[in-house]
Amino acid sequence: MDDDTVRINVGGTMFTTRLSTVQKYPNTLLGSISFESDCYSKDDKSFYFDRNPELFNTILDYYRNGCLHLPNHLCGWLWKTELEFWKIPLTDISECCHKTISSYNKRVDVSKMLKAVFSPLNHSEYASPSGIGKLRHRLWLFLDEPESSTWAKVFSFIYLSTVLVSASFPCLKTHPGIRIQTSNATTILKLAAYNNVQMWMNKDNHKEMQFATTKEPNWLYYWSLVICIFFSVETILRVLTCSTKNKFVKEWLNILDIILFVIMWICYGIKHAEKEILSNKHLAYFLCFCEAVSVLRLFKFFRLAKQYSSLRILFIAVQSSVRELLLLLITFFVFGWMFANLVYYTEILESESFPNMLVGFWWSVVTMTTVGYGDVYPVGPLGRVVGVLCSLCGLLVLAMPIAIIAGNFDSLCRHNEEREAYVKLQTKQKSNIPKAWETSKIDPNYPIKLFESYT
Amino acid sequence: MDDDTVRINVGGTMFTTRLSTVQKYPNTLLGSISFESDCYSKDDKSFYFDRNPELFNTILDYYRNGCLHLPNHLCGWLWKTELEFWKIPLTDISECCHKTISSYNKRVDVSKMLKAVFSPLNHSEYASPSGIGKLRHRLWLFLDEPESSTWAKVFSFIYLSTVLVSASFPCLKTHPGIRIQTSNATTILKLAAYNNVQMWMNKDNHKEMQFATTKEPNWLYYWSLVICIFFSVETILRVLTCSTKNKFVKEWLNILDIILFVIMWICYGIKHAEKEILSNKHLAYFLCFCEAVSVLRLFKFFRLAKQYSSLRILFIAVQSSVRELLLLLITFFVFGWMFANLVYYTEILESESFPNMLVGFWWSVVTMTTVGYGDVYPVGPLGRVVGVLCSLCGLLVLAMPIAIIAGNFDSLCRHNEEREAYVKLQTKQKSNIPKAWETSKIDPNYPIKLFESYT
Amino acid sequence: MDDDTVRINVGGTMFTTRLSTVQKYPNTLLGSISFESDCYSKDDKSFYFDRNPELFNTILDYYRNGCLHLPNHLCGWLWKTELEFWKIPLTDISECCHKTISSYNKRVDVSKMLKAVFSPLNHSEYASPSGIGKLRHRLWLFLDEPESSTWAKVFSFIYLSTVLVSASFPCLKTHPGIRIQTSNATTILKLAAYNNVQMWMNKDNHKEMQFATTKEPNWLYYWSLVICIFFSVETILRVLTCSTKNKFVKEWLNILDIILFVIMWICYGIKHAEKEILSNKHLAYFLCFCEAVSVLRLFKFFRLAKQYSSLRILFIAVQSSVRELLLLLITFFVFGWMFANLVYYTEILESESFPNMLVGFWWSVVTMTTVGYGDVYPVGPLGRVVGVLCSLCGLLVLAMPIAIIAGNFDSLCRHNEEREAYVKLQTKQKSNIPKAWETSKIDPNYPIKLFESYT
Amino acid sequence: MDDDTVRINVGGTMFTTRLSTVQKYPNTLLGSISFESDCYSKDDKSFYFDRNPELFNTILDYYRNGCLHLPNHLCGWLWKTELEFWKIPLTDISECCHKTISSYNKRVDVSKMLKAVFSPLNHSEYASPSGIGKLRHRLWLFLDEPESSTWAKVFSFIYLSTVLVSASFPCLKTHPGIRIQTSNATTILKLAAYNNVQMWMNKDNHKEMQFATTKEPNWLYYWSLVICIFFSVETILRVLTCSTKNKFVKEWLNILDIILFVIMWICYGIKHAEKEILSNKHLAYFLCFCEAVSVLRLFKFFRLAKQYSSLRILFIAVQSSVRELLLLLITFFVFGWMFANLVYYTEILESESFPNMLVGFWWSVVTMTTVGYGDVYPVGPLGRVVGVLCSLCGLLVLAMPIAIIAGNFDSLCRHNEEREAYVKLQTKQKSNIPKAWETSKIDPNYPIKLFESYT
Repeated sequence: MDDDTVRINVGGTMFTTRLSTVQKYPNTLLGSISFESDCYSKDDKSFYFDRNPELFNTILDYYRNGCLHLPNHLCGWLWKTELEFWKIPLTDISECCHKTISSYNKRVDVSKMLKAVFSPLNHSEYASPSGIGKLRHRLWLFLDEPESSTWAKVFSFIYLSTVLVSASFPCLKTHPGIRIQTSNATTILKLAAYNNVQMWMNKDNHKEMQFATTKEPNWLYYWSLVICIFFSVETILRVLTCSTKNKFVKEWLNILDIILFVIMWICYGIKHAEKEILSNKHLAYFLCFCEAVSVLRLFKFFRLAKQYSSLRILFIAVQSSVRELLLLLITFFVFGWMFANLVYYTEILESESFPNMLVGFWWSVVTMTTVGYGDVYPVGPLGRVVGVLCSLCGLLVLAMPIAIIAGNFDSLCRHNEEREAYVKLQTKQKSNIPKAWETSKIDPNYPIKLFESYT
Repeated sequence: MDDDTVRINVGGTMFTTRLSTVQKYPNTLLGSISFESDCYSKDDKSFYFDRNPELFNTILDYYRNGCLHLPNHLCGWLWKTELEFWKIPLTDISECCHKTISSYNKRVDVSKMLKAVFSPLNHSEYASPSGIGKLRHRLWLFLDEPESSTWAKVFSFIYLSTVLVSASFPCLKTHPGIRIQTSNATTILKLAAYNNVQMWMNKDNHKEMQFATTKEPNWLYYWSLVICIFFSVETILRVLTCSTKNKFVKEWLNILDIILFVIMWICYGIKHAEKEILSNKHLAYFLCFCEAVSVLRLFKFFRLAKQYSSLRILFIAVQSSVRELLLLLITFFVFGWMFANLVYYTEILESESFPNMLVGFWWSVVTMTTVGYGDVYPVGPLGRVVGVLCSLCGLLVLAMPIAIIAGNFDSLCRHNEEREAYVKLQTKQKSNIPKAWETSKIDPNYPIKLFESYT
Repeated sequence: MDDDTVRINVGGTMFTTRLSTVQKYPNTLLGSISFESDCYSKDDKSFYFDRNPELFNTILDYYRNGCLHLPNHLCGWLWKTELEFWKIPLTDISECCHKTISSYNKRVDVSKMLKAVFSPLNHSEYASPSGIGKLRHRLWLFLDEPESSTWAKVFSFIYLSTVLVSASFPCLKTHPGIRIQTSNATTILKLAAYNNVQMWMNKDNHKEMQFATTKEPNWLYYWSLVICIFFSVETILRVLTCSTKNKFVKEWLNILDIILFVIMWICYGIKHAEKEILSNKHLAYFLCFCEAVSVLRLFKFFRLAKQYSSLRILFIAVQSSVRELLLLLITFFVFGWMFANLVYYTEILESESFPNMLVGFWWSVVTMTTVGYGDVYPVGPLGRVVGVLCSLCGLLVLAMPIAIIAGNFDSLCRHNEEREAYVKLQTKQKSNIPKAWETSKIDPNYPIKLFESYT
Repeated sequence: MDDDTVRINVGGTMFTTRLSTVQKYPNTLLGSISFESDCYSKDDKSFYFDRNPELFNTILDYYRNGCLHLPNHLCGWLWKTELEFWKIPLTDISECCHKTISSYNKRVDVSKMLKAVFSPLNHSEYASPSGIGKLRHRLWLFLDEPESSTWAKVFSFIYLSTVLVSASFPCLKTHPGIRIQTSNATTILKLAAYNNVQMWMNKDNHKEMQFATTKEPNWLYYWSLVICIFFSVETILRVLTCSTKNKFVKEWLNILDIILFVIMWICYGIKHAEKEILSNKHLAYFLCFCEAVSVLRLFKFFRLAKQYSSLRILFIAVQSSVRELLLLLITFFVFGWMFANLVYYTEILESESFPNMLVGFWWSVVTMTTVGYGDVYPVGPLGRVVGVLCSLCGLLVLAMPIAIIAGNFDSLCRHNEEREAYVKLQTKQKSNIPKAWETSKIDPNYPIKLFESYT
């Protein structure tokens, strides 16, 4: 061997290469070594580095081949550390092998995000010794942390039951079998004429007439009042006890609570003005709108999510798939509208089907999602060809983004499972194993048993 | 090199590092070595450990980098053993690389579970030498193990055929073409009036009148009696011969057998009181309920599962996806109910559609599952917007948990395939290969042939 | 180090372990080494084996840990060879790491299967020098191998066009707009009465009356005769030219050809007996059956599969998923029948819906597949609960096996893609690269250029 | 050891094997070594190669085992380079391990394709210093690159809004609530009779009569004219400013623009000939066709794709799945047609359902896609059996290719994500890190800190 040869001792293993090879990249650590540097040992004429020799093969191949290809069985963290040590920029990793680094980065990001979502709350902000601060802390624990005490558990159970019961109220309120007949249609129309009130209702619409001629029973009225008061008190307490108002505002469930609180009482206010509802169409519609919106109280059910991680993962999956959801909507509506046009013009000779293009859009949506009610469908041969294309297009256009969203959910679930296994191990080991290690140190024979064969 | 340098000989490969590095974690084996310990060899000034040098690179990196990142191409078992040897706690594995361990643990759990499900039964409990014990054992084998004898196979075939035949009986029993006319509607009503019996039936309901005016043919009556007796005898024998009563109770198929046994005979009892059925509404309804429940005898078909592993895997997959199923139900019902509310209020002006909110719920379920019967559908523009949202929401909400459940089934199937391949190999090798090895030992020339080149 | 220590030189790398360790398994090669054997070198006191040192780490761990865990980044073939060399039985691989071997075995099986399916045909059986043999071979190539000559390509194109055209004939034959009116319904009934022929037709059934009062146009009759003759000649030639009759019988497309050949001519025979068809119900039904079966000629289209690999892969995927298809059918029908029972009994009070249980089964199938025609649907509240359960059950029960079948198809497609890439590379390299290597040998400077740095 | 032994020093690690082993393949580099070659060092009696010793294990196993099995944790590029160095042909890789190479090749192909699609445009072709050239460049940037300037962004926003607005015009144009009544049906018919014009319209068809008796409002007419002119100017500018006409023609969006441009003005031309439309059926139909085609202007929306990568990936996924789409269509239509035949003949006795076979085809398509309108459905028992088979077949036949297409989309998305991460890293590192490295070189203590322990 000639003078060009360099011997490098990495963690005990000797590597031999040419000096010209390593000097290809003078900005890196290996490219800037010289026989005067501290790591050169004159005894065995080699440079010594205290690193992993297995990884050094890849590092040396960077100098030999001029590009960096990472084996994919090692963690991205190791490569980041190793490349930093050897002063090789991360950008010199070839594109085909960059996956190791980028998937590690992504993994860490997801880990952090999950940790933030599932982390136990920081109670330090309640550290104030004043009596009111303590009371607020206690109330907040009672309302928000079912695990904190038995009473909190009981409250949590009552809360969820109330949500479920209140969810059934809109149904009871409007069910013909429960409402109480107060007058019949003829009477009310006569009465209106007598009072000179302009009735806005359509006499042929059962549902509208029902509201005019019946009223909800008293027990239902009082029970919904009770539930209203319960939720109001709960919302007010939440607002009062929440430590940092900013954080309170951030959580969408809290905002929803406040909106529902406002709407609930508006409803109650309007309801008492019975006569005005009968004469004022817009007030009646506004009441309907309020009633419809108040179904969102069902989302209070998702407070359960705190105890039920799958539900949270579902939310996170939907959140992190915003791009795919947008894609789904854009392609869905573009294709839907296109087929609406096509089916309208291809069915223009059929007198019954597709009176206008909006019906066509409704049809194309119903077809693309494969719901297929059958209220409208093409009847002419050309229209049916459009129908075949529409249903196949729908399957394709929907399958692709939904597969990705389902995949995101799947990978988040797996990730969370691993996180839970890790947390469980950490908790278990913290309480038990340290003692085990201590005792193993006390036992004087243990190491001997293991190594006695070497003597 | 200076005094700080340590040379460690791991399985023949020499590693060099600094003493200060390994002393970072004094509780570990490598952190507590000293030049007086037995593994220190003064000849070549190194510590000797009889371990795998490939794995030691990772161990040493733990001391160099301060965290443990495992390569993912090696089995979790190896790492567990290795970390135990070097006395490094499992909790020091960094989160990003903990997957190796947790996936190994999961794999072992699934393996054990599958082994328990598919293991051959332990016959030792029948070891009692008494004649009755032997008889019980034989009967039990006859009933439960089709592979045990030819007669058991024949019985198993008869059993499955009987289940299939009996499954068609409810259909035959109620089919208008098979029932025999006994009287017509007018006669029976007159008769009832004459006997002063209060008839509960709705004259306009064909199905109810059919039960009053027709009866099942005799051949059907006697055949169902035969099948009833067959199943009864079989259930009684099962109860008697089952070795450990506790285990019998645990298996849900056995519990189902007993429930069906009870219901079957209740049905027979009630049926004979024909007159009372005609006059007593509740008795008739109870009979209907019993008949409806007795369709569960179809589940007896799943005894086949013992011979058909895919079916069992399906059950296990559903069982182990309880979390996802719950998630599916919760989100499905919350969204379903929400859309029921929305569609009711947005369609309030349409006189025909959605008479009450329960119909709205039925509609939203039918839409979210993309079944779309078309018995109810929104007709107003706002209602159709709700319809579009509902169908898209349904696709998303259903796709995510179902993808996970399907994925669980898929991974269980693969796992089971591997288990079967392994069991097959073990069985084959046990019978053949040992002999082969023995003969190879007898052949005195074999090792020479292989190694003669080294001489 | 003491006498217990053994030094093993594997391919140049030195391993050190204890003699007692390797002697744990005396039946293996390493367990039976002695200092007298040929592989022991007295110079450096070590046993020499010419094997891969990287793999030897795993082998040695087998002796150290007592079980064999294989890294998963190496091919199963390597491990099989390695374990055979060291005389370690394959059964000593621990279950968690057996995947490497079993997935390799599976991969090889799939490879062989795909190779068999896509292999070029063996023409050796036509090697007979006789003139008839040659002619048969030529005809067979002409019929079955479109790639063999230009005429074969033309024939293949004509064949496929004919299949497509003939597929549209059943439609043309029965379309009211194409059939020619021969008489009207009144005339034919009178005629029948006059001839004393008992007409079997239902006067209210348009479709049946159409067959009686119209006839297919002449041009259609003659064209279908031409196509019939074309297919007949083709089938006869196939039977005559096919070299090995057994193989001919094995391929289902050929059997189908013969069946279609028979049915086609039976149809033609029957059709001429017009009068008898009108009077004989069973003959008419048999004709209908023949016409219905002859649609299977559409499967002739799949001869295209020879040129279109995706289609073959689809067939193979369905074939290799027989287990999952069976599972799909069993669970589908058990659940379908169960829901049929449940819906019948829960809807017994509704006079209109579900007149009998078979309608219930039709409904449950239509619901479980989410088709949802809306011809039958539950109307009572209990029936609708059954409907909700049925549709959710259907989604689950269908999603699981279909996911597996789709997965099988996916993996077969990927496998085939790789096979194609491999075959392409082999073909390319065979024609070009050998020459390149030869020239590189001629160039005397090439090795010098590469190695001049070592001098 | 004897004369047959060869010592090979690969990058510092010594390998020992037999000369006869390496001479198995004399065409390879290792097979042609001799003691006279430059790489032989007489000092330590070994051949020296400056390569990666980790990879050399696999190379040497090629000589030992006679076939090449690659570990799958290393990049295909490394193996290609390594095999080229050792002059081993790529075709000697065994089929089971060829995946490493083929997946690398595929990966590189996909990378190149994605790079080509998402690459920034080459502006060099506008380098001409002439004033007109500059203007063209500016206009082109303004029209096609929203990122180039604020005005371009504004234009892009206006453009997309115009597309959205113009998409709603066909709907407004044909909606009964917006069109203005000009005459009633009776008047127009009388007028036609008076003018001796042969009216082609069907009096019973609302939609056709609406076109005759109403006209679009003026505001709509002028707005659509404005939009027409806007799109025309835009198209003309695009044609004029596009640098290379060939490339312009290649992009399908541009071709679409020109087609729409022509159709738009034809429509306007025809519309003014109101009287002729009423009397000439074919002209009216041609107008309908033009209106239907002009919905394709919705595809202008996909110019957004330039800014929205998911949409492009969707297109690429569909493009690269042509094979699977074709498979989908072939199997779908073959099975659809088959079930159409079967259902027609099995339902021939039912007088109402399936009047002809085309209706059967429509039914089978609607069933296989699980749309299930319920306009046609089998009613007889045999027909329903065909229905059950059809829906199950549909699920299977559609699930398989769609799973593959969704999988292609998924893998392309992942690939693109990695590409984006890589591009981001490269961009970031280029601007920041070089400086960091420079400063680290200035700091004279940095290397000392790292290596001081070795001294």
